[in-house]
Amino acid sequence: MIGADGVIQPLAVSMGDPAGIGPEIIAKAWAARDEHGLPPFVAVGDDRAIARVWNGPITVVQDIRSAVAAFPDALPVLSVEDAGEITPGRPDVEGARCALHALELAVGLVRSNAASALVTGPVSKAQLYQIGFTHPGQTEFVAERCGIAGANAVMMLAGPSLRVVPMTTHVPLAKVPGLITVDLVLAKARATARGLFRNFGIAEPRLAVAGLNPHAGESGAIGREEIDAIEPAIAQLQAEGIDITGPLAADTLFHPRARARYDAVLCCYHDQALVPLKTLHFDEGVNITLGLPIVRTSPDHGTAFGIAGMDAAEPGAMIAAIRMASEAAAHRARLGL
Amino acid sequence: MIGADGVIQPLAVSMGDPAGIGPEIIAKAWAARDEHGLPPFVAVGDDRAIARVWNGPITVVQDIRSAVAAFPDALPVLSVEDAGEITPGRPDVEGARCALHALELAVGLVRSNAASALVTGPVSKAQLYQIGFTHPGQTEFVAERCGIAGANAVMMLAGPSLRVVPMTTHVPLAKVPGLITVDLVLAKARATARGLFRNFGIAEPRLAVAGLNPHAGESGAIGREEIDAIEPAIAQLQAEGIDITGPLAADTLFHPRARARYDAVLCCYHDQALVPLKTLHFDEGVNITLGLPIVRTSPDHGTAFGIAGMDAAEPGAMIAAIRMASEAAAHRARLGL
Repeated sequence: MIGADGVIQPLAVSMGDPAGIGPEIIAKAWAARDEHGLPPFVAVGDDRAIARVWNGPITVVQDIRSAVAAFPDALPVLSVEDAGEITPGRPDVEGARCALHALELAVGLVRSNAASALVTGPVSKAQLYQIGFTHPGQTEFVAERCGIAGANAVMMLAGPSLRVVPMTTHVPLAKVPGLITVDLVLAKARATARGLFRNFGIAEPRLAVAGLNPHAGESGAIGREEIDAIEPAIAQLQAEGIDITGPLAADTLFHPRARARYDAVLCCYHDQALVPLKTLHFDEGVNITLGLPIVRTSPDHGTAFGIAGMDAAEPGAMIAAIRMASEAAAHRARLGL
Repeated sequence: MIGADGVIQPLAVSMGDPAGIGPEIIAKAWAARDEHGLPPFVAVGDDRAIARVWNGPITVVQDIRSAVAAFPDALPVLSVEDAGEITPGRPDVEGARCALHALELAVGLVRSNAASALVTGPVSKAQLYQIGFTHPGQTEFVAERCGIAGANAVMMLAGPSLRVVPMTTHVPLAKVPGLITVDLVLAKARATARGLFRNFGIAEPRLAVAGLNPHAGESGAIGREEIDAIEPAIAQLQAEGIDITGPLAADTLFHPRARARYDAVLCCYHDQALVPLKTLHFDEGVNITLGLPIVRTSPDHGTAFGIAGMDAAEPGAMIAAIRMASEAAAHRARLGL
């Protein structure tokens, strides 16, 4: 990505928890940079966390501008404070502090246009909460740093053949029906349509909405949320000129012929979105945050402490997250955003 | 299948609604009998419904014993009463009556050991209700005719790489959490383990149970149904010697490596089961009823009135249903059941 000053900008990849698989998959993504045509990126975190699990070349850079020049020959790392004793698979609060500072620095680099896009490695929320982190997750933290209310940052999960937006996320299933309102569907659908344009360059995005109930409620015979909330929202969105259909029976929405009919599906709850996405694209799912002034992606998996340090982590989702971030930044640059 | 008297028995395939795609997919399955190595079967219904949508050879048989001899050269049809005027895509009560009588005759043939297994074509519940049909669906009707309470007949959906059992079915999502009880999980898991042995010949079936909530509730942080109902049931089932694991996060349960770890998944609700099954196996899903004294399968799709008579129906699921019924009957015969 070429910045306004004509300088090529790298992507900023925050390392996540130093005891998780973040350092390993970032290193493996760098090693696969030519095979996957990845643009220059700089890892942000404690360089020792990478050296601990990887034997390849690392260059600690003091300045993000040197990262691009270094990238062909070594993984550039912009080091933040010492993470203390690092043991893969054994997270601690020092590691969490390092992960948070890495995230903060990486966000700042993108906000100040020194980096073109943000890719975040997986963190341990349990450890972050112990050091006083008060956001539900990295997404809300990034949103706040961008001056956006967390509720307006919309999570999309994307794989090669499917993009889904869960309209509710980490809430008990019993609470979901009460959360499906006209306003929720309106807000999520508008953000999704805008996000598909800004991040994927889709000028006239086609949205589908899954029903909450089996068979999308069968005209009220199996639940009324479709009639009371989803249908009125869709009618209003159509009146606004958004290409949106539904509510559709979720079980007929994800086979190959169905997927060809839309650019993204709005789902009513976590598993309705994540089950098809991970069934199809378990090793290459990307979490992209819509509604931010910056591009932010993340591999759609956790710290995987159980396999950290064993050279067993698959870098596919990190590679996909870097590529998607780079493409989104390019779309935004072309659109003048 | 060779019966106790040494005579080869055909499968009985009820035609379903004569105005739906049942007649067409049965005829197409017969046409593909050699390609797919299908055993002899007899269609049960109004032969004119098939002739209306298909130009191949049909033999109306008076007696099921003649069906096997006829099968290589023509589709054998055991005719029931006249379905009246048949217009593909236009269901009526005369068609529903014909579908019900075909189902009843086909069940009787299997119950009396004249046929080896039952495959049911798709019916229109709306039309059946108009003629006084009081069962929720064909499954409960078949269960009753077999002297089994409908609640003890368990629906399993099966494709080439996945078998799922929805523990609740056509109820509003809001009602699901209240239905997930220890007793429900116990009953469904026992029936599933037994059914995998009897119908699939799996001596030591491995079961997995999906959690109700996102991430299977994260130890109670996102809902308590896992702790209150699913975990105690699993502990009891394990104590009974059943190989069962869970509750597992539904979104990590259906990718290829995960599917290799179990023979069937018990799911908490309709879409949790049907979304992954139809995402993977939309055109070849089979509904098999566990807990019956007879083998009963069905293609996992409806009457598809919208494409009936257009030569557009895919016979894949019907072919898979016939093959699965035949294999299940063979397993039962080998086990002396």
